[in-house]
This record gives sequence, structure tokens and C-alpha cells, in this order.
Amino acid sequence: MDTIIIDGKQTARSVLQRLSAQIGQLKQSGHTPGLAVVLVGEDPASRVYVNSKVKACEELGIYSQKWALPTETTQEELVQLIRQLNADDRIHGILVQSPPPKHIDEQAVVLAIDPRKDVDGFHPINVAKLVLEDPTGFVPCTPLGCMELLSACGIPTQGKHAVVIGRSMIVGKPMAHLLVGKRANATVTIAHSRTADLPGLCRTADILVAAVGRPGLVTADFIKPGAVVLDVGINRVEDATRPRGYRIVGDVDFASVQPLCSAITPVPGGVGPMTIAMLMSNTVKACKLACGA
Amino acid sequence: MDTIIIDGKQTARSVLQRLSAQIGQLKQSGHTPGLAVVLVGEDPASRVYVNSKVKACEELGIYSQKWALPTETTQEELVQLIRQLNADDRIHGILVQSPPPKHIDEQAVVLAIDPRKDVDGFHPINVAKLVLEDPTGFVPCTPLGCMELLSACGIPTQGKHAVVIGRSMIVGKPMAHLLVGKRANATVTIAHSRTADLPGLCRTADILVAAVGRPGLVTADFIKPGAVVLDVGINRVEDATRPRGYRIVGDVDFASVQPLCSAITPVPGGVGPMTIAMLMSNTVKACKLACGA
Repeated sequence: MDTIIIDGKQTARSVLQRLSAQIGQLKQSGHTPGLAVVLVGEDPASRVYVNSKVKACEELGIYSQKWALPTETTQEELVQLIRQLNADDRIHGILVQSPPPKHIDEQAVVLAIDPRKDVDGFHPINVAKLVLEDPTGFVPCTPLGCMELLSACGIPTQGKHAVVIGRSMIVGKPMAHLLVGKRANATVTIAHSRTADLPGLCRTADILVAAVGRPGLVTADFIKPGAVVLDVGINRVEDATRPRGYRIVGDVDFASVQPLCSAITPVPGGVGPMTIAMLMSNTVKACKLACGA
Repeated sequence: MDTIIIDGKQTARSVLQRLSAQIGQLKQSGHTPGLAVVLVGEDPASRVYVNSKVKACEELGIYSQKWALPTETTQEELVQLIRQLNADDRIHGILVQSPPPKHIDEQAVVLAIDPRKDVDGFHPINVAKLVLEDPTGFVPCTPLGCMELLSACGIPTQGKHAVVIGRSMIVGKPMAHLLVGKRANATVTIAHSRTADLPGLCRTADILVAAVGRPGLVTADFIKPGAVVLDVGINRVEDATRPRGYRIVGDVDFASVQPLCSAITPVPGGVGPMTIAMLMSNTVKACKLACGA
């Protein structure tokens, strides 16, 4: 089969280009979108993510603030900073990099963020808006990026059977809601660790989304020929041949799956690059909603 | 096949009996659960529903208020009443009978209800709590009643494939969340009007929930032998042989489906009686949460 390797980098570039034009218009009317990125602690991976988010802002002309707080920051201090950012008119989006140190209650932090600035889409108000299909809400960036990839590649969803493996609040559940909603109209199955005969179920999928964090879980026997496969997994596996001693792989065993499907996202270079693009998109949306544009 | 006809009336009675004991304990510690039922307009079916809810309160010893407002009540007047009920310590649950007259914005009314008194489970805060599996939230009564029926009949859900036909906020979506959550652990498919080959999909279901409002939609060709079928539909169909000129039927063609399945809810007498029982259950829960019991 002639498989389309879905190019997340290219699609992300198109999204950023579209946003760039919108940001230009906003600035002309006196509004500059602003994002605050908050990092607590020293986790090296988190540091990389935060820096790439700030860099994306700079490249697009989004005003950004980077707050790097020490590990011993208290919950109260963090919430105090969020209140300050909630009140700051220059800031339209607030992102607290996950995971915070263990003494911080992540859910309390999410609740402290003004839902109108919750560009991660984790606040209960935004969770409800997603379920209620209220377009003023913010949707988590990764599933939003998956929908954008489907749309950019012209992959129809209406009446198709989509199977989402994983029921997390960050990917699985929002992905299912986006797919089953009236804009996409897919028939959606949510599968998870307790699902019986996962391969057999997945073989009924026209669109398969893997979001579990288990390297190579999805193998050829999961695939209906011609299916579309979106791989959300970002897993480190040891690899002595690599300079850093590991490589990044998805939840899909790309080599065995790719020949069977009509389209597939690689890891890296598939869903990953879309996540930051959609964060930028949510920030621009927050700015537009705030200024009534 | 020896089919179990699931007796909703009997299960509802058991639920009410359990609640009766809890209400007795609450009263001994000085707390009486209270429910306010608000009806706007003259719709005869709504009047019947409201009266049966008030009657259920009286039989259980739940304090109740019935507000019957004229059709011409304004949105502002209705919201004003809800604010008054929000502030009334005797009232733990507030239910505004649906549908209100057309000049009333139902979503605005839902938002006016204190989420802690939203025993219908329609407020966005409760929608989010359901998705987040927060047990302090309120779940809509009909899907909650379906889960209670499964549990009362000892029907296992873990690893089973449940297909829910219908994606409404009142039944389909909350039902899917209850089934896919960590307490039930089912694999869940949400199907709807745009689903391709609905009969074929439904034949993969161990548990089939029909909640679309189309009389007799589910026929024998939808059923895997041995499946459990929950019929949420309540449809009026003309019937000249009946004194009222109609009879009530579900979404399931009972006569053809019943012989194939291991258990099925009849209409009437299946899911219907559970809805009021779960409303009482939510009211008792609201009282317990309010008084810290």
C-alpha cells in the first residue's frame, strides 16, 4: 500500500504561518497575544519543553514570560504567581509545565488558572466546554493537534470508526470527544488497559489513535488494511548506538504497521510538533476572545 | 435463551429502601434532605413528572417544595427564584423541569444553579467532575440508574464492550463516561445517527444501551446472542386500542430482541422507574455533602 507518512513538522509550519497572519492583524489593532510559561524545579526534559515553547512565541511575535521557579517553591507561592498572571492584561495564556515537584497539588494549580487563560485546556470549565461542544473553550493541545493533522491531510472522519487507546484527561478522553462531536461525527471507541482482545478491537478501526505510553504496543495485528494511524506516544527506549544512550519511539511499531495503513504519523516528527503549534493557536484564540476580535 | 427481564420497579424500590435508612440517620443528626422542583408553564407531561417527583419525596420523608410558575415567567424571575433556592439551607437539590418555555434560555438556568445543588448533574462543574471521575459530583439520573441496574443484576462490566447509541448530554455521553471510568472499566463505543453499519457495530456489544428516542430502532439484527440490553427510550406511538390513544415504547423492538439477549429492560418498567430513584439518591447525597455526613 502507498502509505502517506503524515508530516507533522510541515503541518505545524502551516498552522504557524496561519497564526502569524492573525497575530499581525491583532497587533495592527493594538493587541499582542501573550503567554506565560511557568516551570517549577529542575527536571531537564521540562526545561527543554519550556524553552521550546518560549522560542516558538518569539519566532511568532507572541509576547512571552518565562518563570523558572526553584524546586522548593511552595504551593501558595505558585498560586500567588498564577493570580498575578490572571490579573496581567498582557498575558492571555498561562501554562504551568507538568509535572510539578511532588509537594505541589497539580489539580489545585489548574483550578487557580483563570479558565479564559487556560491554554492547556485542563481546567474543569474547559473540560465541560469540550463535552458540551462550546467553541469558546480550550482543548488540550495534543488531541487538538491530532484533529488538525486529520484535517490537513484531508482524512474524512464522518461515519468512520475511530478507536482511541488510552483514557487520560490529557489525550484519550478529549480525543474521543473531538472525534464523536458534531464537527467530526466519527463513531468512537475508547479502549484501555482492561480492554479484552485489544488487537481484535483495533482491527475494526478506520482511524486508530494510540495514546498509552507503551513503546511498540501497536503491532501489525492491530491494523485493518488501509487504516489511518496516529501515534501519540513519546517513549524513551535505551539505545547504546545513540549519543544520548536512548532513542524516542511511539506506541506504534512503525516498521510492521506502516506497510498496512493508508496514513501514519511517525515518531518523532508526527503528532509531537503539532502540540506546540496548537499551544500557540490556543494563545492566539485566548487573545482574540479577550479583546473581542 | 433464558432472558432476565430486568425489573426496574423492584430495583428502584431497593434503592429507595436504602435511602430511607440513610434519611432516617440524617434526620436523627438534625438534617432533613430537601428538594425544590420548579415547573414553568403548562406542559401536561412535565406536570406529571413534577408531581411524581414531589410524591417520591413525600413517601421518603424528603422535604420538598413545588414551584409551579406561569408560562409568562421571565428568565430573570426564574433565575431570581433559583438564587433564592441556592441560599435556602433547607434545600439541598434544585430541579428545573425540562423543557422550559421557549423564551427561557435553559443553559443560563442550569448555570444559575449552585453546582452543589445541581441534582440533575447538568451544570458544567458536574459535567467536568464526571469526566475527571471526581466522586463529589452529580451524575445525570438516567445513566446513573442504568449503572445501578447493571450492578443490582450482578452484570459485570470490566473488559466488556459496551455500545451506547446516542451522544446526548443527558444520557449518551454521561453513560459512556460511567462505563469507561475506572469503577466500571468497560470498553465503550459511542454510536449515533452518522454511524455506518449501526446493526453490525451493535452486534459487537456485550452491553447495548439505546438512548436515541426512535421507537423500535434496535431490532434482532443488532444483537449478539447473550448481550445485555438497556432501553432508555421513552416514545409515544399512536395506538387506537389504548384509552389515551397511544402507548409508550422504547428504542428497542422488545419482541424480536428479547429472545436473543441474556438480560433486557422492558419499557415501561425498566430504566424509567430508576430515574426518580436516582434523583432521590442525588438529593440525599447533596444533603450529606452539605452537612459533612
